[in-house]
Amino acid sequence: MQIAIVLYDRFTALDAVGPYETLGRLPGADTVFVAERSGPVRTDTGHLAITADRTLADVPSPDIVVVPGGPGQSPQMENQVLLDWLRAADATSTWTTSVCTGSLLLAAAGLLQGRRATSHWLALDQLPRFGAEPTGERVVVDGKYVTAAGVSSGIDMGLTLLGTLAGDDYAMSVQLLTEYDPQPPYDAGSPRKAPARLVEEWRAKSRFIVS
Amino acid sequence: MQIAIVLYDRFTALDAVGPYETLGRLPGADTVFVAERSGPVRTDTGHLAITADRTLADVPSPDIVVVPGGPGQSPQMENQVLLDWLRAADATSTWTTSVCTGSLLLAAAGLLQGRRATSHWLALDQLPRFGAEPTGERVVVDGKYVTAAGVSSGIDMGLTLLGTLAGDDYAMSVQLLTEYDPQPPYDAGSPRKAPARLVEEWRAKSRFIVS
Repeated sequence: MQIAIVLYDRFTALDAVGPYETLGRLPGADTVFVAERSGPVRTDTGHLAITADRTLADVPSPDIVVVPGGPGQSPQMENQVLLDWLRAADATSTWTTSVCTGSLLLAAAGLLQGRRATSHWLALDQLPRFGAEPTGERVVVDGKYVTAAGVSSGIDMGLTLLGTLAGDDYAMSVQLLTEYDPQPPYDAGSPRKAPARLVEEWRAKSRFIVS
Repeated sequence: MQIAIVLYDRFTALDAVGPYETLGRLPGADTVFVAERSGPVRTDTGHLAITADRTLADVPSPDIVVVPGGPGQSPQMENQVLLDWLRAADATSTWTTSVCTGSLLLAAAGLLQGRRATSHWLALDQLPRFGAEPTGERVVVDGKYVTAAGVSSGIDMGLTLLGTLAGDDYAMSVQLLTEYDPQPPYDAGSPRKAPARLVEEWRAKSRFIVS
């Protein structure tokens, strides 16, 4: 069972590491970080680099595809090498998944046409441009397509898919061993829960960033 | 404000990436991944490598020290280069922090003597050997020492310290933008919540791994 996690310049680290640390612990799984070119790939802050051990061309038919999001997603929407790889990999994958704005890359590749899907809350309104139906859920499963909301939701997505593939006991063991018993000091993790002034502030700023 | 996140062979990725993705977004912070030697450092699964951009010697006096845990922590307990660096960095740090079994490295360096602290639930009973008082809390602040429980708790630790340093609104914005509104598919993230048979199973296995 090969799991390919796709990297590109200015991805968001936790988008990739959440599924890696959960789904990647699937028994017998060979998790491989891939990018257009192999070598270190820098995240959005510039302070962290994860190594792509293989190129996209090296890994043509993974069983599971995981596409993270991040500020670097926008230029990738025009990257035909990546979009072609996503379409080809999806043709034989068992599961095609994304975290955060990674769903916009799946959508741009034409893979979410007519599907229910999610994305970062600031990017949800872009999904219909590609024929996908946005939902406000944290993890959305539609056929073999599993999309997760912003950044940290990849942990919940990874555990969900791990439970489907390896059983509840195994997924609960991974939750226990990663001590995933969240106790955030605030309850501000979604636009429905955060103070309205913060939600409005970031919606206003994102008009310059996202559009 | 310099934040040094310490890497070593077979660390656990999420231990390091949780604080990086939250605390590392402190305004003006220069987050740097450091290790005994610079270059890619492999995690516990072998499938992921994060680049140490600088050596420990390059970064002698960070404002904040973050020490992740992972299976590779055990051999580091004898690494005098790392322990000496931790003691020297701690002498001038504003905050000295850890995630998971990273607290055992702080303890082995003599930094948690007489302090309340936490660690991965399977490693809590090792803290008293080094004069630290273990607690079952997820994030423990004792003076300038902030220790977090297993793996994923570094996200909660990072947000907690971010709130202290940059204010509640800023920390809530980071929670909102990382969409940290956890919805795990199971409630098995601590030994108090997981099925007892799984807790017993992993306690039994860890006797061979940890001791």
